[in-house]
Amino acid sequence: MKSFSPIRIQEAAARIAPHLNRTPLLTSSLLNSWLGHQIIFKAESFQKIGAFKARGALNALLARREKGKLPEEVVAFSSGNHAQAVAWSAAQLGIRATIVMPSTVSNVKLQATKSYGAEVILTATRQEAEMRTAELVAQGMALIHPYDHDDVIAGQGTACLEALQDGAKPDAIFAPCGGGGLLSGTFLAAKLLAPNALVFGVEPALANDASQSYRSGKIVALPETPATLADGVRTLSVAARTFYYLKQLDGFYEIAESDIIYWTQWLTHLLKTAIEPTSALGMAAATAWLSTQSSPKRVLIILSGGNIDQPTQAILWRENKLLSLPSL
Amino acid sequence: MKSFSPIRIQEAAARIAPHLNRTPLLTSSLLNSWLGHQIIFKAESFQKIGAFKARGALNALLARREKGKLPEEVVAFSSGNHAQAVAWSAAQLGIRATIVMPSTVSNVKLQATKSYGAEVILTATRQEAEMRTAELVAQGMALIHPYDHDDVIAGQGTACLEALQDGAKPDAIFAPCGGGGLLSGTFLAAKLLAPNALVFGVEPALANDASQSYRSGKIVALPETPATLADGVRTLSVAARTFYYLKQLDGFYEIAESDIIYWTQWLTHLLKTAIEPTSALGMAAATAWLSTQSSPKRVLIILSGGNIDQPTQAILWRENKLLSLPSL
Repeated sequence: MKSFSPIRIQEAAARIAPHLNRTPLLTSSLLNSWLGHQIIFKAESFQKIGAFKARGALNALLARREKGKLPEEVVAFSSGNHAQAVAWSAAQLGIRATIVMPSTVSNVKLQATKSYGAEVILTATRQEAEMRTAELVAQGMALIHPYDHDDVIAGQGTACLEALQDGAKPDAIFAPCGGGGLLSGTFLAAKLLAPNALVFGVEPALANDASQSYRSGKIVALPETPATLADGVRTLSVAARTFYYLKQLDGFYEIAESDIIYWTQWLTHLLKTAIEPTSALGMAAATAWLSTQSSPKRVLIILSGGNIDQPTQAILWRENKLLSLPSL
Repeated sequence: MKSFSPIRIQEAAARIAPHLNRTPLLTSSLLNSWLGHQIIFKAESFQKIGAFKARGALNALLARREKGKLPEEVVAFSSGNHAQAVAWSAAQLGIRATIVMPSTVSNVKLQATKSYGAEVILTATRQEAEMRTAELVAQGMALIHPYDHDDVIAGQGTACLEALQDGAKPDAIFAPCGGGGLLSGTFLAAKLLAPNALVFGVEPALANDASQSYRSGKIVALPETPATLADGVRTLSVAARTFYYLKQLDGFYEIAESDIIYWTQWLTHLLKTAIEPTSALGMAAATAWLSTQSSPKRVLIILSGGNIDQPTQAILWRENKLLSLPSL
């Protein structure tokens, strides 16, 4: 696996900037005073389609167009934010998109994907979805992979790049890990603009394939889709392309479901922005890391997005986690 | 009741600007395309303390300081956002605040009020709270009323003023009505910068005292605290001071609880910001008004804030309202 220069993150940033939001950095003075550290949040809930995924998908399409290789139609397989990202990006460039989704996808994600003009194919099983996707690729559609592509990784890295350009100055950076695209891009952006910052990956304990892979030095795959509430990181395994970077990280954290719910509630309360469960992973890991530090630190947390369907909301707010104040 | 010049809203804006956030205007291209109108949201969830209430409380204190009449200690009676607004504002000016709260207040609101440095007195009943507050005023503390004060009204009006300065250009403006402070200020701001815009008040049908007052031409009080989920507008009646302006509005809308929940879910989903139930009132009313319009309109909705405790969240997300897309 050949690495690519971190400069490609800057090229991606210039490419996508005219189309996407420069999302804000958020802070909570209450949280900082409670913890005794500075926590800076990059709020990708305010990105187009409500999640960072718009960055990678759009960069992949724009990079193809620059090379004169823009296809007439693209295809993606996703039940989550990548589906909306590809649908939205294709609409921006005036090309057609077909999204293959499991029929268990929530109505609101289905409607959002259709609203961006994509054709949606619902399949009963994952196997069927993979077969349908392969057929469409064989028919000439270009596959936009959610993470196993350099342009997608470079696009996802622009979130961290912007945060560093906007003055985050972190001692440590935390990002969630599904297939590893966001985390690889974050690592490369840090290499470029904050080479001394530590970079950590975060997963639910129920979906700890990347953490297992990191510890064992080889890619470990989960046997089946994990039952974590953090639906953005249910991927079965990372790719060789992303593992190349993940191996170089400063560590992985594994988060219990109850801590995911705790921080989803608290960050919603403190930041007043929609926090999908995957967004809560970074803060849960940061508190674990900060509790080992003997001096005040600055931490950058990448919030993946704010797309939460009603069944997930109902689970998230079932118990009151706001009774216990954040502390280290 | 003597009216005051709308110019006082501009004076309030200049006074509070150095201390408060200029909150963003949000839009949803999906929502606009579904409805065929332009909806502009003034997002007071991103104001200090997470609600517009910081504007009025701070303006009241700063105006007193300008006159050399800043007290050493202030008192307020509130179970909601006004409590945090007074606590926070007093801390900004370096004076003490005592907040009288019912003991049924949620832990998270109690903690937030204490976090701003206020002393909190919990009382078992409303009567007891009023007695304790009166005692403290008799001892020399200055009462900061949540709506029955010109400086508070002027402060609340700065939310609409900013939206109009920032290019909202509305045909109609919708704001929720509890005691009428926000709505009176909104009316005065519109007089100043958008004199042709219609201004409507919005209440839950379960807490329709202002609407009843508007129709009957005299102030009507509810017999007891209404059981609406919109906890920001459970006030029993408006004041003579605010009713003077409310009488001049273009109308009132009364919203069913199910529609409050519907729009809380949808606006959370579309805007990715925390939507307290009171914030949903304006959009519910706007759809009713827009359904009577024969040409595309621009509408400004004042979102009151984003402070939502867990029991309220649990109720809000119990049923899936996202199955039915917004339409007129």
